[in-house]
Amino acid sequence: MRPLRWGMIGGGEGAFIGAVHRMAARVDGRYQLVAGVFSSDAEKTKRSALALNVDPARAYPSVEAMIAAEKARPDGVEVVSVVTPNHMHYPQSAAFLEAGIDVICDKPLTTNTPDADKLVKLAAEKKRLLGVTFNYTGYPMIRHAKQLIADGLIGQLRVVQAEYPQGWLATLLEKTGQKQAGWRTDPKQAGAGALGDIGSHSFQLVEFVTGEKVSEVAADVSALVPGRVIDDNVNVLLRFASGARGSLWASQVAIGHLNSHRLRVYGENGSILWFQERPEELTVIEAGQAPQLVRRGDPGTPTSSVALPGGHPEGFIEAFSQLYTDFAERVTARLESRSPKAASLFAPDAATGARVMAFIEAVLKSGQANSAWTRI
Amino acid sequence: MRPLRWGMIGGGEGAFIGAVHRMAARVDGRYQLVAGVFSSDAEKTKRSALALNVDPARAYPSVEAMIAAEKARPDGVEVVSVVTPNHMHYPQSAAFLEAGIDVICDKPLTTNTPDADKLVKLAAEKKRLLGVTFNYTGYPMIRHAKQLIADGLIGQLRVVQAEYPQGWLATLLEKTGQKQAGWRTDPKQAGAGALGDIGSHSFQLVEFVTGEKVSEVAADVSALVPGRVIDDNVNVLLRFASGARGSLWASQVAIGHLNSHRLRVYGENGSILWFQERPEELTVIEAGQAPQLVRRGDPGTPTSSVALPGGHPEGFIEAFSQLYTDFAERVTARLESRSPKAASLFAPDAATGARVMAFIEAVLKSGQANSAWTRI
Amino acid sequence: MRPLRWGMIGGGEGAFIGAVHRMAARVDGRYQLVAGVFSSDAEKTKRSALALNVDPARAYPSVEAMIAAEKARPDGVEVVSVVTPNHMHYPQSAAFLEAGIDVICDKPLTTNTPDADKLVKLAAEKKRLLGVTFNYTGYPMIRHAKQLIADGLIGQLRVVQAEYPQGWLATLLEKTGQKQAGWRTDPKQAGAGALGDIGSHSFQLVEFVTGEKVSEVAADVSALVPGRVIDDNVNVLLRFASGARGSLWASQVAIGHLNSHRLRVYGENGSILWFQERPEELTVIEAGQAPQLVRRGDPGTPTSSVALPGGHPEGFIEAFSQLYTDFAERVTARLESRSPKAASLFAPDAATGARVMAFIEAVLKSGQANSAWTRI
Amino acid sequence: MRPLRWGMIGGGEGAFIGAVHRMAARVDGRYQLVAGVFSSDAEKTKRSALALNVDPARAYPSVEAMIAAEKARPDGVEVVSVVTPNHMHYPQSAAFLEAGIDVICDKPLTTNTPDADKLVKLAAEKKRLLGVTFNYTGYPMIRHAKQLIADGLIGQLRVVQAEYPQGWLATLLEKTGQKQAGWRTDPKQAGAGALGDIGSHSFQLVEFVTGEKVSEVAADVSALVPGRVIDDNVNVLLRFASGARGSLWASQVAIGHLNSHRLRVYGENGSILWFQERPEELTVIEAGQAPQLVRRGDPGTPTSSVALPGGHPEGFIEAFSQLYTDFAERVTARLESRSPKAASLFAPDAATGARVMAFIEAVLKSGQANSAWTRI
Repeated sequence: MRPLRWGMIGGGEGAFIGAVHRMAARVDGRYQLVAGVFSSDAEKTKRSALALNVDPARAYPSVEAMIAAEKARPDGVEVVSVVTPNHMHYPQSAAFLEAGIDVICDKPLTTNTPDADKLVKLAAEKKRLLGVTFNYTGYPMIRHAKQLIADGLIGQLRVVQAEYPQGWLATLLEKTGQKQAGWRTDPKQAGAGALGDIGSHSFQLVEFVTGEKVSEVAADVSALVPGRVIDDNVNVLLRFASGARGSLWASQVAIGHLNSHRLRVYGENGSILWFQERPEELTVIEAGQAPQLVRRGDPGTPTSSVALPGGHPEGFIEAFSQLYTDFAERVTARLESRSPKAASLFAPDAATGARVMAFIEAVLKSGQANSAWTRI
Repeated sequence: MRPLRWGMIGGGEGAFIGAVHRMAARVDGRYQLVAGVFSSDAEKTKRSALALNVDPARAYPSVEAMIAAEKARPDGVEVVSVVTPNHMHYPQSAAFLEAGIDVICDKPLTTNTPDADKLVKLAAEKKRLLGVTFNYTGYPMIRHAKQLIADGLIGQLRVVQAEYPQGWLATLLEKTGQKQAGWRTDPKQAGAGALGDIGSHSFQLVEFVTGEKVSEVAADVSALVPGRVIDDNVNVLLRFASGARGSLWASQVAIGHLNSHRLRVYGENGSILWFQERPEELTVIEAGQAPQLVRRGDPGTPTSSVALPGGHPEGFIEAFSQLYTDFAERVTARLESRSPKAASLFAPDAATGARVMAFIEAVLKSGQANSAWTRI
Repeated sequence: MRPLRWGMIGGGEGAFIGAVHRMAARVDGRYQLVAGVFSSDAEKTKRSALALNVDPARAYPSVEAMIAAEKARPDGVEVVSVVTPNHMHYPQSAAFLEAGIDVICDKPLTTNTPDADKLVKLAAEKKRLLGVTFNYTGYPMIRHAKQLIADGLIGQLRVVQAEYPQGWLATLLEKTGQKQAGWRTDPKQAGAGALGDIGSHSFQLVEFVTGEKVSEVAADVSALVPGRVIDDNVNVLLRFASGARGSLWASQVAIGHLNSHRLRVYGENGSILWFQERPEELTVIEAGQAPQLVRRGDPGTPTSSVALPGGHPEGFIEAFSQLYTDFAERVTARLESRSPKAASLFAPDAATGARVMAFIEAVLKSGQANSAWTRI
Repeated sequence: MRPLRWGMIGGGEGAFIGAVHRMAARVDGRYQLVAGVFSSDAEKTKRSALALNVDPARAYPSVEAMIAAEKARPDGVEVVSVVTPNHMHYPQSAAFLEAGIDVICDKPLTTNTPDADKLVKLAAEKKRLLGVTFNYTGYPMIRHAKQLIADGLIGQLRVVQAEYPQGWLATLLEKTGQKQAGWRTDPKQAGAGALGDIGSHSFQLVEFVTGEKVSEVAADVSALVPGRVIDDNVNVLLRFASGARGSLWASQVAIGHLNSHRLRVYGENGSILWFQERPEELTVIEAGQAPQLVRRGDPGTPTSSVALPGGHPEGFIEAFSQLYTDFAERVTARLESRSPKAASLFAPDAATGARVMAFIEAVLKSGQANSAWTRI
């Protein structure tokens, strides 16, 4: 199977998430990195190309230059990953879609809902993929949870408790020159703080796993570290269209937590619990029975694209890689004029990206209205 | 050491919480059960006296009869435990306090704040104990958590996440004749549902451990099981007087949970986490260090009144017994005209009972006002 | 129900295990302490009687004096608990059995197998109870494990992994004057070290839960702390009569462990895992299914005599109390000339005590023979 | 940085471990697969080359053909991975070493110690790498454990408890045509069963982490599934040259376990515990302190080559990839005539492979001698 000709926008020297995308694509094995704009700094782009074994001639100074040159080649890029700062996601994704090139965009899709809606429309018009890497949907046990719920295991949904606490911003790290802290706490670059960075993941997983829509939110949005100018702790009450209730907590000041992303879903007949720091396990409870600790590899659980035997831990990269597998399948299916395999549709795309933007905006609005219930 | 002459109001045949109080008192060893009104049914009271090895002559048909007879004896009861249905707590506790007899009352103290306030006042006037058995305060590791926070380990409080999920009322159990479900879901007998039964414990523990006051609440109060006439799921946002934030979740429909009472407290310098189903452990995190799993028996942890070596699990009865130890110390100190040992003051009394009633009323009010922030 | 008239031999001021027996008996509520030889020091016995609310006239200077006086009373003791140092268990238990008084003896039953065998015989001749408090058999989830295995859940037994690590003797604590460390590391008083103190519990639980007999052992018996004169770490290979295999590890030098008594049993169709520091849980695995985390209170689990709802942790005292409940039932049944309830037969008696002595002797013999396989 | 020109021997269609090696190499990014003998079946080799995007001209029918052709090219392979059945490891590794090509060999290195010793010698003579993928040494927290112990945290070693239970061979799976079960239970292909497959990993980790040598073993080697002709359960007592004691258990019949590889190390001043199914955590206990749950990312922990932030789980592939990183560094250092970075020396090589063979042979010998102590 010929690998897809792949480009990267962003992801040069020292970039965290760019390196993750690359490892994910490599584990999958269906992508060959052949071109890119690895940095806004042309020199850095050249150096990155060298380090990444990419032909320096295909390391471009700008998206426009890249599109022009690559469209002119018979072996031009087929798909690009956009891993630049959040505010660049919209124009860059739009440019590639306009050029008929499939796009994999890091989350968040944009910095506001109108832009997100435009991208949804554009991807549909151009019939191109606009995948968004809400990576937790790549975990096999998350997909298993979604399937069990879709199959009716827990019956009518009643309560959802979602949370994503971290502790790394418990001090004013952004004042120390730390790069990750810097842009993530800058309202201009990041839009929202804990809410956008991690609350977004939590919300996305809630709707992904339950298959239900949150209809309104009541939120207490706080900057708890003195001197911080963006939210670092968000407590949100949730109401679902179906009448279910819940809450969502995202925090970057919860000392001791690394990425303690947790989802607990309760229905009339059972419950499902998941915790990102032990992503290979799912606690499944059917009413009237003892809890089951279902592990990847136990009977009935799905196989990941990496396909390790159960008990050989798969983690963050493998889940990320699953999305790349899914995106490759969808791009390839189009190139081959066939339907993609159903499982590949689990991977989130522009509609999900737009939905998450709407959530973020509703939470911020509720926060400004002293936690009044606000529709998404 | 002579045991205290002890009476019980309620706690006859088949009563759950009465049996717990008795085991707690026996483990402590400082109480001798000598009299009681074990049931509103005089026959049942007699039978219970027999089963409990109490002189049948001191098994009374009413609180009034008991007070009259016992006050007339040189060896009359010194302290009574009130373990009757909630709406009886107020008149019965008041009657014994009026008679100068110390009272240990099961929670909730009353069914409304005016009554609770009257009891606070009455106990003060009569200089008698009105202990309230918020039993989770008896766990050694909860006291250790309180002490660590009081000593400044976590610094300024920032976030509190409290929860108490159960799953036993996920169906309309109250329609099946089950006794515990019956009275606990009857608004007339119970006042509030999940909120009063378990949310109260969660709130009480929040203020006990942090040493801070919740100033206002925004609550979503729900009856999620169709046909139920009282709340069975409550999601509450918390704001503290100090500016800290948090949330509290109490639910009786979370299938799979037994008594998953959990408290997580985050400050500017560290965090403390506790979980009732593993009550002997505390996760203690100091900023910049790996989490510590502190177990009862590890250096610096307090000794319970039962004083088992660490690793020999103490549980619910032992924690309950700790309160009885504390109450015995306070009664004995008064009888001996001395100050009680400081540790005995950890055990909650009428003021705590009144505070919890105020919380319950604020949550219900917020719930009726579509989750508007409401002062406690 | 009239409580049994109960005496204690040992268990005076400052005794750890005596206090545990008392709490266990009190929680049960079927015992009234009326007499005793609480110490070998008559003064201490008197003081203890006072503290325990026992008539000083029934606080005796010797077992002989106690038997003579109590037999002469119409309301003499019916059952005694022997909680003296190990080497006194044999003569004292024998004396009470000879006098027709039921005995509850702390473990180990004796310090050698001939004595243990004599007690087995004597109890049978006198038709009296000689209960031995191997307390871990009192945990409801241990009894549940035994029942599941007896019912065939795991099929033919294959492997047993048993262990009981502690860390408290990782230094020469016995040289510091610490009382518990002193007698437990003195070969004359204790017979064996880690092997006798905790390895005995581990072995007893293996045979109790599996219902099978260990036929031979190969043991490496070590004193790992320089200067210690008794074993503090024992690694034992096990072979069962049925052909199953396994190992047993007991250690007092495993720093960090409190009482990490663990039992894992594997059969041809499933497995059962238990851990004393979380005694309310059992991991139950049936071949081809995900593990179940069965908690006391889940469907099908037994009720303890304390009968708390699941999720209200029962612990060490409650398990100990279960044995006292069982012993009370067996004594009462004899007094009432009826058969005891079947469940009360779970509580270990002299035969178990003798079996454990045989295990200890076989392990020591194997250890002296450079780990040669040695029959029990 | 130019990637190394890399070849594979084995690892064609359907091969589990070959795919793992490829993912590991790709994640690392320092290897470019350019040639191979992917199967003993030449057709399969061709098909595999196609699937792997390797020039079909460099897909060879035999090792000899590959060496001849590649040595003749200016851009011939620099390093090969040998992932064939165990009995092929020796001749194939030897052939490449003889040709001056670096080798990464899957474990076990050979099927007997003389062959292993020859390879140790040959690699030394030829000054080439002979890396062996004992992959658990690639976990960051395993390296952290080794470092803590080397730094003296636990002092003198006292006890080691090692185990590696699995449950997948609890039935005669080898009779069903399952490929993995087939060759792993065939004495001719595998040499030893549970002992060689997983006991080898457990032993290797014991010596790697403690930095000490096991001097003798006493082993009970069993085939517990009726009809099986190779060991599926091994219980081993360990004695260390330093006087420390321990045990090792490897089983493939422990139903419910996936890859429950666990290592517990106890010294005079502390303990370290690790569990492969939660590989990112280490329990570290210093005498007199509460246990610490140290997670990758906590202060003082090492960075893996993948370098994910703590709490983003790294797993099996990432650990495997770490070895490939280390091997790449060692090969590159030689090519560049410099010393390799110290950390790269953690990755096991031929000496480790030979040591493990000696362990396996000692255990089998002890097993045949009714568990007599046998020197390694």
